Amino acid sequence: MTDNTPGKQPLTLLGLGAMGTALARTWLAAGHPLTVWNRSPARADALAAEGASAAGTAAEAVAANRLVVLCLLDDASVGQTLAGADLAGKDLINLTTSTPGQARALAAWAQERGARFLDGGVMAVPPMIGAAGSGGYIFYSGSRALFDAHRETLVVPAGTTYVGEDPGFAALHDVALLSAMTGMFAGVAHAFALIRKENIEPRALAPLLADWLTAMSPAVHTTAAQLDSGDYSAGVVSNLAMQVAGSATLLRTAGEQGVSAELLTPYLALMELRLAEAERGNEEGTTGVIDLLVR
Amino acid sequence: MTDNTPGKQPLTLLGLGAMGTALARTWLAAGHPLTVWNRSPARADALAAEGASAAGTAAEAVAANRLVVLCLLDDASVGQTLAGADLAGKDLINLTTSTPGQARALAAWAQERGARFLDGGVMAVPPMIGAAGSGGYIFYSGSRALFDAHRETLVVPAGTTYVGEDPGFAALHDVALLSAMTGMFAGVAHAFALIRKENIEPRALAPLLADWLTAMSPAVHTTAAQLDSGDYSAGVVSNLAMQVAGSATLLRTAGEQGVSAELLTPYLALMELRLAEAERGNEEGTTGVIDLLVR
Ligand SMILES: NC(=O)c1ccc[n+]([C@@H]2O[C@H](COP(=O)([O-])OP(=O)(O)OC[C@H]3O[C@@H](n4cnc5c(N)ncnc54)[C@H](OP(=O)(O)O)[C@@H]3O)[C@@H](O)[C@H]2O)c1
Ligand SMILES: NC(=O)c1ccc[n+]([C@@H]2O[C@H](COP(=O)([O-])OP(=O)(O)OC[C@H]3O[C@@H](n4cnc5c(N)ncnc54)[C@H](OP(=O)(O)O)[C@@H]3O)[C@@H](O)[C@H]2O)c1
Repeated sequence: MTDNTPGKQPLTLLGLGAMGTALARTWLAAGHPLTVWNRSPARADALAAEGASAAGTAAEAVAANRLVVLCLLDDASVGQTLAGADLAGKDLINLTTSTPGQARALAAWAQERGARFLDGGVMAVPPMIGAAGSGGYIFYSGSRALFDAHRETLVVPAGTTYVGEDPGFAALHDVALLSAMTGMFAGVAHAFALIRKENIEPRALAPLLADWLTAMSPAVHTTAAQLDSGDYSAGVVSNLAMQVAGSATLLRTAGEQGVSAELLTPYLALMELRLAEAERGNEEGTTGVIDLLVR
Repeated sequence: MTDNTPGKQPLTLLGLGAMGTALARTWLAAGHPLTVWNRSPARADALAAEGASAAGTAAEAVAANRLVVLCLLDDASVGQTLAGADLAGKDLINLTTSTPGQARALAAWAQERGARFLDGGVMAVPPMIGAAGSGGYIFYSGSRALFDAHRETLVVPAGTTYVGEDPGFAALHDVALLSAMTGMFAGVAHAFALIRKENIEPRALAPLLADWLTAMSPAVHTTAAQLDSGDYSAGVVSNLAMQVAGSATLLRTAGEQGVSAELLTPYLALMELRLAEAERGNEEGTTGVIDLLVR
């Protein structure tokens, strides 16, 4: 139970799942007057007991405040929830995970109805919300004016990173980082599989893996510089031919250890394809693989 | 040109490619009497001009010192190079990249010929050799007595991490880390491909990617603890069902951006397969995917 602090921005939050509830608690704890709505009323009742006002319908919740934050399951649930609400003059912030295209379409739809729109991509799990120094933060894109107007409210649950007026950019950055992480986790799964039948404890390998991945992650700066300049040979230490040769050891080791190489083979195959296409004497590294992914 | 320092361990190095030459220079700079051999004599002549003794044949180079280090292209070149050498009483250290099986076979072969054997996996590129704080180091496994006897010599080019008496373990750790890195680089390639047609500079995305991957790499400790305990639900924040649902956004975004999802789909497919196999109400994360990789 928290008293509302005078001067704190009142706001509405639609959606009280794991993430929405975490967000709601940080705003309540910081003294923001908070109106909540959830499709299943029980979750809103729980928040009401902690100091929020529970609205009976989504339209009523939207009507209660100028600043309206959405954190629902997916893009479809956002459309359903906002269908009967009057958005004229509203500042709408959508923290529901979506694709860049969905965010752009929602921005256009909201603007037609007279609302300013900001999209967010939450780079955190619920326990990181409100926990400073957790490494979590939220990407925002869309109306800069809206972002600037509500910055003090937005920094309450997590750090903020504004990435541009294009309402699709927050989602695009979100998905780019999650995609890179998916690749990293796939590689880590393969690594742990390799030692499965050996007398090596996973907890002994883990710090070596974490340190190595951290030490190698700055390679993204070399890749970015090459993409920016178009010179894919700049700063290359191990050329593509060496790396393709090294692939054989990775694949043979997987075979020896009885591990399927399916998580590695698509990348190794693209490296080989790029090498076959590259001119003789070419000193590129692996950046050319990126060209092969884009249609 | 470096004078040999009294008391510094004399040694022989076979193989003067990019890595062998970098190793040779650090030992010369530290004052170790060094005998070198290379299949193409020009590279040995270059090192002789820097203070090394160039041997005429591999067998002569092996005969010159008790401590013999190999850094050749691959396992086959090691067999060819040592074919005519007398290995009795030698301390043999193989820094040639190999598979665990190749390292074990070479260890047995060397021991039959009266040599002690240590295998190494070099976690560095040549510019990192001799550069303290570069993040590079060398895994060693095999004879602990040999490792302890020559520790002072071995720390000259790079940090050392001894991972067990099994001569295959250095190669296994090496390949495990390189495999995880391959996955990370595949994910990073996908991320850069996603922004290719957008007004986002790769150099603006790079620090976000590097920070995010670094922030997420400690997840390997959770995975390791789950593998050690067999409880794949321990410490899970995002269960597999949520992550499979999230996959749809990754794939749809790739489609919107005109990017082939081939680098992500194998991992996403294994997550789905594991989810289909898991019991209802199961609160596992993604660790079960590792079980699906091992035959
Ligand atoms: N949890 C995380 O780790 C995490 C991390 C980053 C981003 N996110 C994103 O945050 C958003 C919310 O995630 P969450 O973890 O809170 O999910 P959750 O716990 O599954 O909650 C889903 C929420 O959406 C509501 N909902 C579902 N379908 C609806 C519909 N058709 N109409 C109205 N409301 C509907 C649910 O209402 P009911 O209570 O009535 O079912 C609930 O409030 C998602 O977009 C997710 O991708 C989550
Ligand atoms: N460079 C790296 O970034 C790096 C990183 C980690 C590990 N490693 C490992 O270090 C080892 C050496 O790599 P490197 O970069 O030095 O390779 P490299 O520059 O291609 O040199 C290969 C060396 O092997 C010799 N060689 C090739 N076939 C031979 C044969 N049949 N008999 C005798 N000698 C033969 C070559 O002799 P010639 O001069 O006569 O051709 C040369 O000395 C490899 O196992 C590699 O995987 C390298």
